[in-house]
Amino acid sequence: MRKALLISMTTVFLFTGSSIGADAPISEDTQVCIDCHASLHPNIIAGWKKSLHSKVTPAQGLEKGTLKRRVSLIKPLETLANNVVGCAECHMMNGKKHKDTFEHNGYDIHIVVTPRDCATCHPTEVGQYEKNLMSQAYGNLQNNPVFRSLADSINGIQSFKDMKVSYKAPDDHTNADSCLFCHGTFIDIKGTETRDTVEGEMEFPILSGWPNQGVGRVNPDGSKGSCSACHARHRFSIEMARKPNTCSECHKGPDVPAYGVYSVSKHGNIYSTLGGQWNFDSVPWTVGQDFSAPTCATCHVSLLVSEEEEVLAERTHQMNDRIPWRIFGLIYAHPHPKSSDTTIIKNKAGLPLPTELTGEPVAGYLIDEKEQIKRKKGMQKICLSCHGRSWVDGHFARLENTIKTTNEMTLTGTEILLTAWNKGAAKGLDQKDSIFNETIEKRWVEQWLFYANSTRFASAMAGADYGVFANGRWYMSKNIQEMLDWMKIRIEKANK
Amino acid sequence: MRKALLISMTTVFLFTGSSIGADAPISEDTQVCIDCHASLHPNIIAGWKKSLHSKVTPAQGLEKGTLKRRVSLIKPLETLANNVVGCAECHMMNGKKHKDTFEHNGYDIHIVVTPRDCATCHPTEVGQYEKNLMSQAYGNLQNNPVFRSLADSINGIQSFKDMKVSYKAPDDHTNADSCLFCHGTFIDIKGTETRDTVEGEMEFPILSGWPNQGVGRVNPDGSKGSCSACHARHRFSIEMARKPNTCSECHKGPDVPAYGVYSVSKHGNIYSTLGGQWNFDSVPWTVGQDFSAPTCATCHVSLLVSEEEEVLAERTHQMNDRIPWRIFGLIYAHPHPKSSDTTIIKNKAGLPLPTELTGEPVAGYLIDEKEQIKRKKGMQKICLSCHGRSWVDGHFARLENTIKTTNEMTLTGTEILLTAWNKGAAKGLDQKDSIFNETIEKRWVEQWLFYANSTRFASAMAGADYGVFANGRWYMSKNIQEMLDWMKIRIEKANK
Amino acid sequence: MRKALLISMTTVFLFTGSSIGADAPISEDTQVCIDCHASLHPNIIAGWKKSLHSKVTPAQGLEKGTLKRRVSLIKPLETLANNVVGCAECHMMNGKKHKDTFEHNGYDIHIVVTPRDCATCHPTEVGQYEKNLMSQAYGNLQNNPVFRSLADSINGIQSFKDMKVSYKAPDDHTNADSCLFCHGTFIDIKGTETRDTVEGEMEFPILSGWPNQGVGRVNPDGSKGSCSACHARHRFSIEMARKPNTCSECHKGPDVPAYGVYSVSKHGNIYSTLGGQWNFDSVPWTVGQDFSAPTCATCHVSLLVSEEEEVLAERTHQMNDRIPWRIFGLIYAHPHPKSSDTTIIKNKAGLPLPTELTGEPVAGYLIDEKEQIKRKKGMQKICLSCHGRSWVDGHFARLENTIKTTNEMTLTGTEILLTAWNKGAAKGLDQKDSIFNETIEKRWVEQWLFYANSTRFASAMAGADYGVFANGRWYMSKNIQEMLDWMKIRIEKANK
Repeated sequence: MRKALLISMTTVFLFTGSSIGADAPISEDTQVCIDCHASLHPNIIAGWKKSLHSKVTPAQGLEKGTLKRRVSLIKPLETLANNVVGCAECHMMNGKKHKDTFEHNGYDIHIVVTPRDCATCHPTEVGQYEKNLMSQAYGNLQNNPVFRSLADSINGIQSFKDMKVSYKAPDDHTNADSCLFCHGTFIDIKGTETRDTVEGEMEFPILSGWPNQGVGRVNPDGSKGSCSACHARHRFSIEMARKPNTCSECHKGPDVPAYGVYSVSKHGNIYSTLGGQWNFDSVPWTVGQDFSAPTCATCHVSLLVSEEEEVLAERTHQMNDRIPWRIFGLIYAHPHPKSSDTTIIKNKAGLPLPTELTGEPVAGYLIDEKEQIKRKKGMQKICLSCHGRSWVDGHFARLENTIKTTNEMTLTGTEILLTAWNKGAAKGLDQKDSIFNETIEKRWVEQWLFYANSTRFASAMAGADYGVFANGRWYMSKNIQEMLDWMKIRIEKANK
Repeated sequence: MRKALLISMTTVFLFTGSSIGADAPISEDTQVCIDCHASLHPNIIAGWKKSLHSKVTPAQGLEKGTLKRRVSLIKPLETLANNVVGCAECHMMNGKKHKDTFEHNGYDIHIVVTPRDCATCHPTEVGQYEKNLMSQAYGNLQNNPVFRSLADSINGIQSFKDMKVSYKAPDDHTNADSCLFCHGTFIDIKGTETRDTVEGEMEFPILSGWPNQGVGRVNPDGSKGSCSACHARHRFSIEMARKPNTCSECHKGPDVPAYGVYSVSKHGNIYSTLGGQWNFDSVPWTVGQDFSAPTCATCHVSLLVSEEEEVLAERTHQMNDRIPWRIFGLIYAHPHPKSSDTTIIKNKAGLPLPTELTGEPVAGYLIDEKEQIKRKKGMQKICLSCHGRSWVDGHFARLENTIKTTNEMTLTGTEILLTAWNKGAAKGLDQKDSIFNETIEKRWVEQWLFYANSTRFASAMAGADYGVFANGRWYMSKNIQEMLDWMKIRIEKANK
Repeated sequence: MRKALLISMTTVFLFTGSSIGADAPISEDTQVCIDCHASLHPNIIAGWKKSLHSKVTPAQGLEKGTLKRRVSLIKPLETLANNVVGCAECHMMNGKKHKDTFEHNGYDIHIVVTPRDCATCHPTEVGQYEKNLMSQAYGNLQNNPVFRSLADSINGIQSFKDMKVSYKAPDDHTNADSCLFCHGTFIDIKGTETRDTVEGEMEFPILSGWPNQGVGRVNPDGSKGSCSACHARHRFSIEMARKPNTCSECHKGPDVPAYGVYSVSKHGNIYSTLGGQWNFDSVPWTVGQDFSAPTCATCHVSLLVSEEEEVLAERTHQMNDRIPWRIFGLIYAHPHPKSSDTTIIKNKAGLPLPTELTGEPVAGYLIDEKEQIKRKKGMQKICLSCHGRSWVDGHFARLENTIKTTNEMTLTGTEILLTAWNKGAAKGLDQKDSIFNETIEKRWVEQWLFYANSTRFASAMAGADYGVFANGRWYMSKNIQEMLDWMKIRIEKANK
């Protein structure tokens, strides 16, 4: 009944100019969506109209040569091949498998479009992304007791009573607004609600953990991740994904200051000052012709070719293919984990950490030296587009030295902390207490999570400030003294 | 005599190309200004030449339709109607009422152009701005004993003697260079001085508190504010006012990190990566057509329409029309104040604060729930241009939870501080001492002014970093432990 | 033999389109370089192709009028005059004087192009740069025992043993990755290595301290500096050097937050919002026509003219010609040093510092008041392009007051530190201990290096945040209390 009404409305809208031009083969279902939603949410439709999705059908996309192709399916599902990719093509895809699918004007619609939906046309990218740690970012945090305890110490409300402070467990809204904003939430369906709409009363599902576009979002269809974390809806612009601001949404804070480092690097400077003249849309992406200095995507994601179409780097949504080390220390920098699911890792002490508390890598779960060298060579091939061999070798020698020295400075902090626990200045592992709830423990976290990480990112991407005074070595050095001061005063007190 | 000389110079300049072309009806007075000042201060004239002020007369501006109009006067003063808005039109406006008016080559000129001058053509905007807290930013700081005491503790020089540190009152230059740079100075006339100029010796007024473009500047004509805070002279570009960098001049620091939050939000990313293609000049501003994601102005100031010219948001220089909460906590986040003059507020303890020291809102001076809902709905109408209902509802539910939890974490800090005062670890309200001059007090300030504020801005504008590690919950949590440590050591000492 | 092979390869490449078009008179030597390196390092050649170096010969450059000229040699060396400036023209220049020169396919090539090479065509700029403190940045840090000790306390690994922390001397890689990244490394030749290349086995020199583009790099030919610090290779774009991002590579951290300050200033806002419409390429640079607000280069480097071609500021690579004060306090702000080599300075206490430990300037080594006034007037001439006299005077009065007050706040910190040393709370000068290795000493460093500097940069360039809450007066004020707390607890302990 409603469907009939909508179809008759469509006709009206067609004549008032609100629908898409006749050239683009839009599916009838999508046109029905547009007819109402163009006025309800004008910029959703406007954004989509500017997207490639609204202009090219999967069949047309497949006709392009291997290097130019943006779809990775060999042959598109027949029903989808010859219409552009519109509302219905994504929000009705795999419908029955979505817990958030609901009946809407006679259609089965789901709210949350997932990597599994995108995989209909982009299966290679989705498959690669499953090997990316980010796809597991929800579980790697929430299902790891150590990291979960860290998150709880940040997000839990503290209350003061009888000269003591105690921590409450954080609520779901806070978690979703804090760590899980980037890591991704677990989206669940909490029932339905009735809303008054321009079409009268309608039923909608109530989602928990929504909105969210975190990289490891757990979706109502069981899939993990959110393509719109980087490919913002509803334009899904490759230009946007290739610009560093996209990465900066999550990689700018003191724990992972990649964007800040980039922005003060020579690469970032060239991008900022000359990037306005570059071509961010072309596939493949031609070094020297389309762009003159790397953005994040250049080294970590994009398909790069030379002017002679020699492939300099394959496109990868795994993103760690060219990353030998995980310089984001947890607690120490270490060879990159083999599996994107890091909850499977256990060190000798039984802790779910990729290194011992004293820094030794938990080798079985991490890539070996051979794989490290292979990844390093892959990265260096990109470097060599603009730099000579001795430049590149010198750069990597420094980075590996920085990994070593920052791990040493983390170890010094850890040794002070272990002594503080041992001598009764603080309560930690031995006392079965949280290792994140006291001042010295929080300073220890800053030693590796802020200062050692910042120094390593600065070294890796040549943004020196972040390795010195901007949360770098200056703070690593000062923090050791402050941890020592804190401990010594409390040990003296305990000994009286 | 000088006037005669200048007019003869004008003729010369006209023939050497330095004056404005014949098309633009420039007043004779303005042409006289230009003839000298074009070479004395070339970019003042060059900037103005690029402005709309130099190209459109008020009469022409009024001919535009209601939505397109940038002037709000029904009918312009006759003498001004048919010349473009040049030097004389602003710097000679309402001349006699300006304390800084001086005789200059036969003209009565004032240096400081004020909102009252601008109101000649833009009365609606100036009227709205009077309801904006920013218009009272000078008095709200300087005439509130609590905030003034905070400012003095920041700007006053400390000196060390006999193992003690004492604070001096800050000097005027420091105040003007510090808090009042953004809040606005009080501009006064301190006499006159004679200067050697290209025209020989001339008299000029000596201004104190100058230069300044602060939002609550107290002007020599008694008006408050400075339109050039956002509409930078002498171009007065709407493009500039609509871009977030304008707001960042004052809203980037740790106390109010709105710009930082925006820049790591999805909105900020879309602006940074795709904004180069948008139209920032058009009035009204059409969602989807002119721009694809909000800047600060979009949600808080600009007249927004859909492609069908449905008004989605009215232009407002009150700016708080769509803001239910004041998330900038002083000391706690609270419903927005009713009056832009907040010095009238008194809490139960007699302090000029919008909440009690323990967080309860001082209801009488703050908007009620009905007004809060109205403002929220106004904001959400803009959100719905790009987002569905459940997205928007979910976002606001989280924000309101964040307001609650950050207020709780502020309360915990306050309780520790009150205990420190009570137990003699520090001196505060009961001891009639400054509540901002000791370490624990300064940490308490950081709890609400830096960390709780940052967390709330991050929640309001979805820039997660600033709610976690970048001055967010991590620091709120750590700071509580540090306040506790500081207090406990001093209570122990006091008890010995 | 190899040379012959390469020349025959050249012929092949010429016909496959990889060489440069016939119009540009490229030297035969450069063409040989390009023929191989275009595919080995495609973006080096692509960048150069976009540069002016690849399009204009020195002889053509010299034909331009004085204001438009970018080369400063009166008459170019004959052998170089009539080819564009390519690979060979720079990497074979002054070859025999370079320690890193090596035989490469029959040519004498050096890897590191130095200011002395650039001086072949740009001698005036290189000469000016020698008077710039930056050219001595390596020695001014490494050869000054006080600053070297500071650097060692930052970069040296600390280890914990027997309840004590000790510092090791930092390794060379760390120094190069930290302070010397911006200051410049000392580049030396450590031998040679054989590499497998597409041309078979070849010998290359092994460089230490490489890569580096620091401003005071000590080069294998004995010269100091790196023009590519600002004029990034191989495009050498004046647009890039004129945009503030170039300066931000080194001037963004908490010690010297010039870029951050600029970005929240009105100037920075105008650049960010309207700069996309400016002309950054023209020489000379015309105020009002080419640009509407200053970038770093505008006030400190570029040749500025009015539309009537009146010179408003001379081009200078000395950069301090218009800087009366050194607001980067070491330890206090002071009149600018006379010599770019600051290691010659000794204060009365025999320390290599431009002021006494209590702030008095070491007059003999610093410019006198007359020179200060001259420099100030030079700067103010630029200010007056956009601002009136009372605006400019007011601005500088405030800046000079800020220099005074921040020096006072530094002195207060110093007095606390001296007392801490004197009373045995810490070990310093009298105890012949490092003055940078304990917590209170590190806080003292932050007082002047971070907070006082930030406040002064904020005042100088009107970016208020950085003078208040963003590492400004707020932290200066809080830090004094924290230094006092730290000292008092330890004196009490010592007195027990």
